[in-house]
Amino acid sequence: MAQITTFGELLLRLSPPGYQRLSQADKLELNVGGAEANVAVALGQWGHKPILLSCLPDNDLGKMVSQKLTGLKVNIDKVQYNSGRLGLYFLELGVGLRGGRVVYDRNDSVFSLVEPSIWNWNNVLQHSNWFHWSGITPALSKNAFSSLSDALKHASEKNINVSVDLNYRANLWKWGEDPTKICPDLVSKSKILITNEEATKKMLGIDVDYITEEINQDGYDRMAKELFSAYPNLTQIFIPIRRTIDASENMVTLYGNDKSEGYLSKGINVKNIVDRVGAGDAMTAAIIHNLSNNQKLSDTVELGVAASALKHSVPGDFLIADLNELEAIVKGEKSKINR
Amino acid sequence: MAQITTFGELLLRLSPPGYQRLSQADKLELNVGGAEANVAVALGQWGHKPILLSCLPDNDLGKMVSQKLTGLKVNIDKVQYNSGRLGLYFLELGVGLRGGRVVYDRNDSVFSLVEPSIWNWNNVLQHSNWFHWSGITPALSKNAFSSLSDALKHASEKNINVSVDLNYRANLWKWGEDPTKICPDLVSKSKILITNEEATKKMLGIDVDYITEEINQDGYDRMAKELFSAYPNLTQIFIPIRRTIDASENMVTLYGNDKSEGYLSKGINVKNIVDRVGAGDAMTAAIIHNLSNNQKLSDTVELGVAASALKHSVPGDFLIADLNELEAIVKGEKSKINR
Amino acid sequence: MAQITTFGELLLRLSPPGYQRLSQADKLELNVGGAEANVAVALGQWGHKPILLSCLPDNDLGKMVSQKLTGLKVNIDKVQYNSGRLGLYFLELGVGLRGGRVVYDRNDSVFSLVEPSIWNWNNVLQHSNWFHWSGITPALSKNAFSSLSDALKHASEKNINVSVDLNYRANLWKWGEDPTKICPDLVSKSKILITNEEATKKMLGIDVDYITEEINQDGYDRMAKELFSAYPNLTQIFIPIRRTIDASENMVTLYGNDKSEGYLSKGINVKNIVDRVGAGDAMTAAIIHNLSNNQKLSDTVELGVAASALKHSVPGDFLIADLNELEAIVKGEKSKINR
Amino acid sequence: MAQITTFGELLLRLSPPGYQRLSQADKLELNVGGAEANVAVALGQWGHKPILLSCLPDNDLGKMVSQKLTGLKVNIDKVQYNSGRLGLYFLELGVGLRGGRVVYDRNDSVFSLVEPSIWNWNNVLQHSNWFHWSGITPALSKNAFSSLSDALKHASEKNINVSVDLNYRANLWKWGEDPTKICPDLVSKSKILITNEEATKKMLGIDVDYITEEINQDGYDRMAKELFSAYPNLTQIFIPIRRTIDASENMVTLYGNDKSEGYLSKGINVKNIVDRVGAGDAMTAAIIHNLSNNQKLSDTVELGVAASALKHSVPGDFLIADLNELEAIVKGEKSKINR
Amino acid sequence: MAQITTFGELLLRLSPPGYQRLSQADKLELNVGGAEANVAVALGQWGHKPILLSCLPDNDLGKMVSQKLTGLKVNIDKVQYNSGRLGLYFLELGVGLRGGRVVYDRNDSVFSLVEPSIWNWNNVLQHSNWFHWSGITPALSKNAFSSLSDALKHASEKNINVSVDLNYRANLWKWGEDPTKICPDLVSKSKILITNEEATKKMLGIDVDYITEEINQDGYDRMAKELFSAYPNLTQIFIPIRRTIDASENMVTLYGNDKSEGYLSKGINVKNIVDRVGAGDAMTAAIIHNLSNNQKLSDTVELGVAASALKHSVPGDFLIADLNELEAIVKGEKSKINR
Amino acid sequence: MAQITTFGELLLRLSPPGYQRLSQADKLELNVGGAEANVAVALGQWGHKPILLSCLPDNDLGKMVSQKLTGLKVNIDKVQYNSGRLGLYFLELGVGLRGGRVVYDRNDSVFSLVEPSIWNWNNVLQHSNWFHWSGITPALSKNAFSSLSDALKHASEKNINVSVDLNYRANLWKWGEDPTKICPDLVSKSKILITNEEATKKMLGIDVDYITEEINQDGYDRMAKELFSAYPNLTQIFIPIRRTIDASENMVTLYGNDKSEGYLSKGINVKNIVDRVGAGDAMTAAIIHNLSNNQKLSDTVELGVAASALKHSVPGDFLIADLNELEAIVKGEKSKINR
Repeated sequence: MAQITTFGELLLRLSPPGYQRLSQADKLELNVGGAEANVAVALGQWGHKPILLSCLPDNDLGKMVSQKLTGLKVNIDKVQYNSGRLGLYFLELGVGLRGGRVVYDRNDSVFSLVEPSIWNWNNVLQHSNWFHWSGITPALSKNAFSSLSDALKHASEKNINVSVDLNYRANLWKWGEDPTKICPDLVSKSKILITNEEATKKMLGIDVDYITEEINQDGYDRMAKELFSAYPNLTQIFIPIRRTIDASENMVTLYGNDKSEGYLSKGINVKNIVDRVGAGDAMTAAIIHNLSNNQKLSDTVELGVAASALKHSVPGDFLIADLNELEAIVKGEKSKINR
Repeated sequence: MAQITTFGELLLRLSPPGYQRLSQADKLELNVGGAEANVAVALGQWGHKPILLSCLPDNDLGKMVSQKLTGLKVNIDKVQYNSGRLGLYFLELGVGLRGGRVVYDRNDSVFSLVEPSIWNWNNVLQHSNWFHWSGITPALSKNAFSSLSDALKHASEKNINVSVDLNYRANLWKWGEDPTKICPDLVSKSKILITNEEATKKMLGIDVDYITEEINQDGYDRMAKELFSAYPNLTQIFIPIRRTIDASENMVTLYGNDKSEGYLSKGINVKNIVDRVGAGDAMTAAIIHNLSNNQKLSDTVELGVAASALKHSVPGDFLIADLNELEAIVKGEKSKINR
Repeated sequence: MAQITTFGELLLRLSPPGYQRLSQADKLELNVGGAEANVAVALGQWGHKPILLSCLPDNDLGKMVSQKLTGLKVNIDKVQYNSGRLGLYFLELGVGLRGGRVVYDRNDSVFSLVEPSIWNWNNVLQHSNWFHWSGITPALSKNAFSSLSDALKHASEKNINVSVDLNYRANLWKWGEDPTKICPDLVSKSKILITNEEATKKMLGIDVDYITEEINQDGYDRMAKELFSAYPNLTQIFIPIRRTIDASENMVTLYGNDKSEGYLSKGINVKNIVDRVGAGDAMTAAIIHNLSNNQKLSDTVELGVAASALKHSVPGDFLIADLNELEAIVKGEKSKINR
Repeated sequence: MAQITTFGELLLRLSPPGYQRLSQADKLELNVGGAEANVAVALGQWGHKPILLSCLPDNDLGKMVSQKLTGLKVNIDKVQYNSGRLGLYFLELGVGLRGGRVVYDRNDSVFSLVEPSIWNWNNVLQHSNWFHWSGITPALSKNAFSSLSDALKHASEKNINVSVDLNYRANLWKWGEDPTKICPDLVSKSKILITNEEATKKMLGIDVDYITEEINQDGYDRMAKELFSAYPNLTQIFIPIRRTIDASENMVTLYGNDKSEGYLSKGINVKNIVDRVGAGDAMTAAIIHNLSNNQKLSDTVELGVAASALKHSVPGDFLIADLNELEAIVKGEKSKINR
Repeated sequence: MAQITTFGELLLRLSPPGYQRLSQADKLELNVGGAEANVAVALGQWGHKPILLSCLPDNDLGKMVSQKLTGLKVNIDKVQYNSGRLGLYFLELGVGLRGGRVVYDRNDSVFSLVEPSIWNWNNVLQHSNWFHWSGITPALSKNAFSSLSDALKHASEKNINVSVDLNYRANLWKWGEDPTKICPDLVSKSKILITNEEATKKMLGIDVDYITEEINQDGYDRMAKELFSAYPNLTQIFIPIRRTIDASENMVTLYGNDKSEGYLSKGINVKNIVDRVGAGDAMTAAIIHNLSNNQKLSDTVELGVAASALKHSVPGDFLIADLNELEAIVKGEKSKINR
Repeated sequence: MAQITTFGELLLRLSPPGYQRLSQADKLELNVGGAEANVAVALGQWGHKPILLSCLPDNDLGKMVSQKLTGLKVNIDKVQYNSGRLGLYFLELGVGLRGGRVVYDRNDSVFSLVEPSIWNWNNVLQHSNWFHWSGITPALSKNAFSSLSDALKHASEKNINVSVDLNYRANLWKWGEDPTKICPDLVSKSKILITNEEATKKMLGIDVDYITEEINQDGYDRMAKELFSAYPNLTQIFIPIRRTIDASENMVTLYGNDKSEGYLSKGINVKNIVDRVGAGDAMTAAIIHNLSNNQKLSDTVELGVAASALKHSVPGDFLIADLNELEAIVKGEKSKINR
């Protein structure tokens, strides 16, 4: 089994209970999140011993976050603790016609301010053979970008497998750099790329306007081909496809391509959505899980879409689920009460 | 911008949390409501400074109600405080096959008992150029009817714009008067009428049995024509159309007619309903908002149906939403997470 | 009106609030359950004075359970109190794609350990003319089976009407007996049988593999005929039919046969499911209610499916609903707010 | 064991959770209360089968109230159901320096409006040999007073034992009669009187200003003597004594006199008070329990004060406690964890 | 009545429910706070129309905060909205031996970053004759200090009454200035000074080590004299005195001096403390209330200590209480249930 | 730092929120507990890496328990998972006069049934130099006793330091052995003994009736001497002393003796108790912490009593606190808000 390490910001999420709007709340529910942590937590439940690298404040909030991650089998032994603030985000969950809303309060977090020199990549990645990053990290700050850049340099020298979920977020990227200037280099040091149309355009500068609302494998085949051609280092490309009917009903599909073939998963129409945050990260975790176990592309793609679909039923940012629950969804088993 | 004043009873709503039935509850959630307050609260969020006229008990419950309204930008400076009781209603929200249930406990409320002479309409309506009332007020008591009647007399003398949402409630109207005896006169002092088949029959005595379950503009055109002919004072008529699939799925549509043309909105099929109370009042607020800003009939009708649809996703009686959220629904934008 | 007595284990159900998974919970909601109690509670609301026979621990948990049942009009005067433990079950409610999960913790409960000799059936059934049991009781323990067996012997001697809901649960039946060895005899002492394909096979050893996923009355007619032929003592057979779309949407149908005719109810597609536990028991209660009032088979079947459908909207194991709410569903009335 | 019947209004209490003030609440906790119900509930737990006579609204609230009482072993078979409203009260619990506050909303309740003719006392009191009333009933309305008056007439004819807790409430007594005009006659038909200085003055017109803040048996002996002399029908008199240090600390004492001797209980200093509502009713129940079992005056007085003291630790209006818990307090046992 | 304006940062407080430690929480309760807002909210309930000047983020959190303040009768018409973040603080309430803990997360808040030029003091203070500030504002940032400095310059030119509560917080004051360098000048522009030993030393550089743990008026007389001599502009000095027995029991006392006499309030021993945050601000509000109504020094001091004492019983940062509740405490009335 | 291993049953605690009695609850709060786990959790926060040996069910409840422990830095790598049930206990917290109550439901737990052969002590204790057990383990079952006995045999052979907290529980010890028959041998293999009068008598058969209610060092000196004489293997003896004023106020003291001297801590009077469960285990953890760091006896005793005292303020079975919080209590620092 691969030793997977991931690197990124940890966040505390605060969200009104039930279907309240933020301004109606007098309590907020707490969940730990962050794209990379979400990936690590899913992997921890599936038999991996994922390592999370991050930086937390040395106060009660940092303690709370580390406690929740450790309980979920994420190895945080190499997390750094500094004085500073924890990144927060306020999330109003959507329902029916009403979309979700996020108020970010993650500026100047201890993770985004910490000096790149704090990370001794030689030591930190010593026993890892897989490194996962997301496009959120370079979006946060120059320091976060530099740290990531160092990590990728190190990983590519040591021939560590690198996966990336580009994860474009329009409300970040405020530190002064244009993503298309710096992301291509980062992706060129990675092997597995997870991206969608928007991220491909905004972060890699590749316009794929031939992708249509109607889901058609041809378009994704072309997009994969274009990406493989721009990034010959890539071995696999995955393209998550989400169609939003409303905040309570989404259709999720996943396309994968390993250079030898393209494969489009069946679409799962997810209804009665509880919480769609983290669904992409659950998908990413399933992709990493299967690739690190040398599973077939088609199985990987179906497991990925099942993980994403199931995440929509679990409150919080994390997918709390066993592998056999994912496999039941892949097989199309019905959601009876198991008793 | 018009100075809108509305007049009506304030209620405290008590409802079991989650999907509990009333007899299962050991806690009740509190919300302030009342058809006219619901309209005022929506308008307050959209840049109006609505004035609410009402009468509250001079106790901690009256204080609680006034506090919640003031926070939501409703001007309650002219609310009266008397000894007496606050009107209450117990609401069991429906879900799926199970419909909602209301237990009213609003008899002999301080609002319905207060003497008409308490209201100095000359003073109270001094700076208003729009007066909104609903058919709930004359249903409550002789005093409430008389107060409203005085207000309308005053408004018509001062040429204040008057809108009315007829809002028929079978469980009220117990003070001894037949609605068809007194409502026509009240409507004849109004300019904008919002009504549906049932209210038109029960309150105005006009039977519109040509309106069918299947939604057809012809019927509504005929109904509008009949109403304009009976009430030549009216300048606009709006007919909200609701089709109940079950307690969690309703289709809402709105018809409007400004004498020059009739317009039927697109129908919005609202699923995963959180709370349908107040959806009609949200629609009314949107109509008033647009008319007071001299918007087109077709835009008004589409905004009205969007307001009603969105209200179904917000817990409580009030529509808590910005105008741009309504406009996104009018444009058919999808309910993604905004981050 | 029949005096109905039912006999079975009482359980305390512990379930995470909202849509949390069990491992996410820091609180559990309490509900009393048990197949026979669920039947009794529904009947108590519909004008019956059902007697529940069971055995509870003589501690605060036994007190809690008896209090909740008494409040719901179940006569528990003959419940026994012994030292021992209360059967528990932990229930994770499903939603959307995610199915529900039950962790049973009912081994060695005071009910399953109590000696058969504790029950003086002569005395206990003295005033009863209807005895209801479920297939859960013989699954629990040798003692529970023997007690039930004694009861049925007594009932058949006294010509008491006996109904049974076979209710097969794969995770029980651990005390060493094969259900097909002992259930046929118990059923042969009963008059009304409620069963489905799985229970018929696993408990009576009759394979009905001609029943297909697609609902077709012919198959059920054949199944009823086969069961009547094997059990000539039976006067009515009911076959509940559930099709699981996902954890939030199920279709429920009910087939009944009184030897003279077979009748298949309309199917009700239940969406936005709140809690599907106890839906079968609600159906059983409706069947008993109607049969004990000598209603028509077709009405009984429609009432049964309405009871089951409505139960899905009520949290907890019990159907909390008046008869007129069921009748409204039978008539297809829409789930408007009643105000 | 005596068959005890009590007669009075049932109330639903709504109180903010924790230590919130009413205007801060967005949820209210529900409890059933009413002085006579509180007495009945305590007695039901101690082996009595108390009958409660009252009138409830025939709606979901009436159902909720009857369900909670039945669960607690109060016989409500003779409760009447009428259309009307349930009496409510909003309670803000005090803590430390801040006293509790009650907003009554019980005017025109179904109990206070119901015609005296609804009660067939001959039938209702057929099997009772003990009738308990409180001074709240005649305070509510002319009808409530008349009904009570009829009951006492009937009870005195049948030589039923009558106990009364005078319970003076300044905020009631609004129907137009002076309590000193009508209460003496009611007390003259009773045998056991529970009263304090204020009630004695305001309801019986007897000024006992010799009672001082410092607790001194002589004063109570004199007060008892005076009352026995004014009401020769009385066989026992009890005087509850409460000294309020603050809302979280009270000292409770009880004086009793059975004409042959006066007895002053030890004082119990109750700290960390959870809920002092119903403490007097718990005391009354203990007095009735002991008298109906012919216990000694001194034991009765000590049990009464223990019941009152323990009630302060139980949330809600009811004392939820076994007799052996009271006896442990009488014996001065320490409040260790029982494990 | 004086028109009081106050200027300071608004905070959102997040605290675990009940007595949980922060790391145990999975929900946090929301309260709005900030020393100056706390003062304004108390004044708003006592008949003043206080104006709060502050800067809020132009997002849903800013909306939530403004809504809660408006509901509590604070005039926020002049609050500025900017892009940026809201100051937060995480509060773990103490109990018994365990003290409370605060994790501040208010760095770089929109209030502390906003340019001083945003405030047009001429306009903002136009109708005010009282300006209140606290020592928290100059501690936050250079900009906050400069804004305050401008305000005080303006106030002194216009002869507006200025009060200050020095409120020393060791964990703030990080922007690079020594408080003793800048606070004396600010205090020299004020008339009413509220301070304690620590603030006097850390912010004004005056060491008052003659103040002892044992409360003795002589020391406070000397301290007042020293302060009046250093700041001849001062007309009144108030010194709050708190003695912490443990987190649930504190003794509060208040000393006042109006140059003609010194007065030491009675000490109130506050037990069963619910929430001690904001108690000092409640005291300050009471001082301002009484001074602005020209009340006697001794009454002012007793009202101040009553306000502080009562605040300890109210959850949240605000004192929610009427003036008559304070007066009852001044008079030593007992905390009975008012019913 | 010592490598501490502890061995014992893990329990799930279910307790009503607030001050509800168990029969009033409709929700139960979840906490993980167990005497040995409580010790381990405290040690984990103070820089140790404690190993917990136990057996959990291989279901969602086992997962929940292991998750909470791992989050709190307890090493559970050697915990066994078997099919079976988790031990539970229902706890009603006391308050004021009302004592706490425990309903145990831990019979036949997976821990008490597991075969002794499952534990490979050689392997399990390989890296440990400290083994801690409590008197609860031998009370549970023959298997639990045998396992413990094996462990102690192994520990004594390897000269591992052994500490024991005798922890007598009258409601356990049901498997057929008299504690005085088997405990002396277990204690004779231990070095540090924590015991009180009751445990000493009931488990070791030594009657120390010279210990009086009034706390007097002489008696404890004599008791220690007697125990050292009976168990020459012991190097230290600790005697926790608790005086229960009521459920909300206890006084805790600790006596220690290391053969060279006896030391009685100062007594801490703990008021406003939140949760006294686990206070003894917190004390034990502090003793182990200090002894394993070779601290002085007097410091150990004071730290132990501080840990116990502070635990009373923390909800749940675990002491959640840093060492510096304990030290502040030892130094007598006041419980101010730290901000």
